[in-house]
Amino acid sequence: MGSRDGTGDSTGRQGYAADIDSIREAQARIAPYVHRTPVLSSASIDAMVGKQLFFKCECFQKAGAFKIRGASNSIFALDDEQASKGVVTHSSGNHAAAVALAAKLRGIPAHIVIPRNAPACKVENVKRYGGHIIRSDVSIESRESVCKRVQEETGAVLIHPFNDKYTISGQGTVSLELLEQVPEIDTIIVPISGGGLISGVTLAAKAINPSIRILAAEPKGADDSAQSKAAGKIITLPSTNTIADGLRAFLGDLTWPVVRDLVDDVIVVDDTAIVDAMKMCYEILKVAVEPSGAIGLAAALSDEFKQSSAWHESSKIGIIVSGGNVDLGTLWESLYKQ
Amino acid sequence: MGSRDGTGDSTGRQGYAADIDSIREAQARIAPYVHRTPVLSSASIDAMVGKQLFFKCECFQKAGAFKIRGASNSIFALDDEQASKGVVTHSSGNHAAAVALAAKLRGIPAHIVIPRNAPACKVENVKRYGGHIIRSDVSIESRESVCKRVQEETGAVLIHPFNDKYTISGQGTVSLELLEQVPEIDTIIVPISGGGLISGVTLAAKAINPSIRILAAEPKGADDSAQSKAAGKIITLPSTNTIADGLRAFLGDLTWPVVRDLVDDVIVVDDTAIVDAMKMCYEILKVAVEPSGAIGLAAALSDEFKQSSAWHESSKIGIIVSGGNVDLGTLWESLYKQ
Repeated sequence: MGSRDGTGDSTGRQGYAADIDSIREAQARIAPYVHRTPVLSSASIDAMVGKQLFFKCECFQKAGAFKIRGASNSIFALDDEQASKGVVTHSSGNHAAAVALAAKLRGIPAHIVIPRNAPACKVENVKRYGGHIIRSDVSIESRESVCKRVQEETGAVLIHPFNDKYTISGQGTVSLELLEQVPEIDTIIVPISGGGLISGVTLAAKAINPSIRILAAEPKGADDSAQSKAAGKIITLPSTNTIADGLRAFLGDLTWPVVRDLVDDVIVVDDTAIVDAMKMCYEILKVAVEPSGAIGLAAALSDEFKQSSAWHESSKIGIIVSGGNVDLGTLWESLYKQ
Repeated sequence: MGSRDGTGDSTGRQGYAADIDSIREAQARIAPYVHRTPVLSSASIDAMVGKQLFFKCECFQKAGAFKIRGASNSIFALDDEQASKGVVTHSSGNHAAAVALAAKLRGIPAHIVIPRNAPACKVENVKRYGGHIIRSDVSIESRESVCKRVQEETGAVLIHPFNDKYTISGQGTVSLELLEQVPEIDTIIVPISGGGLISGVTLAAKAINPSIRILAAEPKGADDSAQSKAAGKIITLPSTNTIADGLRAFLGDLTWPVVRDLVDDVIVVDDTAIVDAMKMCYEILKVAVEPSGAIGLAAALSDEFKQSSAWHESSKIGIIVSGGNVDLGTLWESLYKQ
C-alpha cells in the first residue's frame, strides 16, 4: 500500500492523471474488495441495434455501481496515518455509498455530505455501510463548503468522486476487465458526468488497443461535456435537468484533458430515450439499472449514433452499465396490491 | 441427434424419467443454443439470510427463463421426419416462448396454445420468436383439448412443459452448470410447479453429490407439491391463486417420483413474501426477476426454513432464479411522467 496525497495532482507518462500502470496497480490493490462483474448479451437487443453489444454490468458491482473501484483504490492507497483520521466526500449517490463501504472495509470512519435531493435508495445504501451522513443544500457550493468544514474539523482525507488520480485509476479497471472478457470489442460507450469513469476506461482501453473507439453518452439536460468538446474548453451549466441523477456533475481539470484529447465523440440523448433504454434493460436483458446505467444503450440506439461515421466503423460494442440504484416505489405499490 | 418419441415414457437407470447420462447428453446437444448463465452473490443479502447464497440467474437465459434448455433438448432430439411437421405446446408463458425460439432455431413451425389470462409480456415473447399462437380458455382441460386438436390437424409433436424425459434432462443442465461454477454448494432451492426443473436439477445434483440437499419453493396459493409430499400421492387442486404465474401447474407422473423420493422438503411461502424477495432482487441484486424467479430467495428468508433441520445443515445455498419475464407497466408509466 503506497503513500498518496489525497487529491490526485500527479500525472502519468502522457501528462494525464492516470495511465495503464496506475490502472493495473489499482486492479491489484482493489481485487479483494470488488466483484469481477459479468458481461451479458442479448440476441434480441443486437437485432434491434444492428450491432453486437456487450453489457458490462457494473450494476452487479458491490454497492450497486462501479464507484467502489475508485473509492477502494483511493482509500486503500492511503497510508495508515492518513487513513486513521477517516475520509470525507460529497456525493448525491453511488460514490457516497462506495466511500462508506470502502472505509468500512478498511475500518476507518467515512463522513458523507449528501444534498437534500438525493434519491432515498442511495441514502439508504450509505446508511447500510455505516457512513456518517451530513446533509447539505443542493448547490455544489454548499456541498463543497460543508465538505471543507468536515475536513477541517476531523482531518479526514477528501475522496473526490472523479477529479483524482486514484479514483480515475480505480474506475479504469472496468475497462481492463471488459477487454479481458471480450477482447474483440472495437468501441466502448461510457456514461459521462464528472468524467472519472470515462477517463479511466479510455486511458486503459487505448493503452491496450490504440484503435479502440470511446464514445461518451450524456443526457441532454446536463450536456456540459458535449458543449465543452465543441468549445475546446470546460463549459459548466447554470443548472441541470435530467432523470439520470448520476450524470449531473461537470468535468474537472484532471478529466477534461482525457475527454478533450482521447474521447472520440459525445452522444447526447434525451430523458425519454433513457427511459426507453431502461425498459429494454429490465424487460429484455433482465437487469435492474438506474437511468444513468441505461444511457449507453440509449446512445447505441440513437439516430445521432446511427448517422455518425463511428456507426459504420463499429461492430462489437461494449456498453458500460454503470449502476443499478434506483427507487422503484411505484412498482412495489402496484405489486403488493395484487 | 437421436430419435425420440415425443413424450417421454422411457425411464433412466434408477427408474426415473432422466439420469445423469441423459442430462449430460442434453448439455452437449443444447450448448449451441443456450447461454451459460452467471452466478451472482451479494454480501448484503448473505448478511440478511445468515448463509452464503449463490443466485443462478436463468432470467438472463435466452427467452428470459430456463425453459429454453428443455425445449431445445426436446426439439433438437427429434429426427428430421418428426421435426418436419413442427411442434405444439400449451403454456401460459416461458415454455411457450422457449418452444417458439427453439423451433425457430431448428427452422420448423411452432404452434403455441396460450390461455387467455397469460401475461402480455409472455405472449409478446412468443410473437417475437415467430410462434403461431392459438388461444384457449384458462382451464387445463381447454388447453389440452385445443392442443390435441392442433396435433391431429398438423401432425406436430407435443413438447410437454415438464412431464417428459427430454424436457427434464434439458432443465437438469442448470444444475450441472451451477455445480461447475460453485462446487461447494450443499443445498439448492428450486421453484416447483409441474416439477420439470426440480426433477432435472435433483437428478443431476444428487448424481454428482449424493449428500446435496434439494428444497422446493412453492407458493401457498398453488401448494400441490407440499400436499402431495404430505399425502404420499399426487394431489391436484381445484384452483390456484398466486402472483407467481409460472408456478400454477401440478406435478406429472414422471416428475412426482423424483419429488417424492429425492426432493428433501417443500418450503411454502405466501405472495407477500414473494414480492418482498422480488424487491430485494431488484434493489440489492439488481436483477429483474419475475415472481416465480424470486421464490427461492423468499424460501431462504422464510421462518419455515429457519426453523427446519435443513437450515442448520446448510451453509452454501444455490438459488435457482428461474426467469425474468414480468409486466412492469406501472413502473414505466411513473418514469415517463417524470
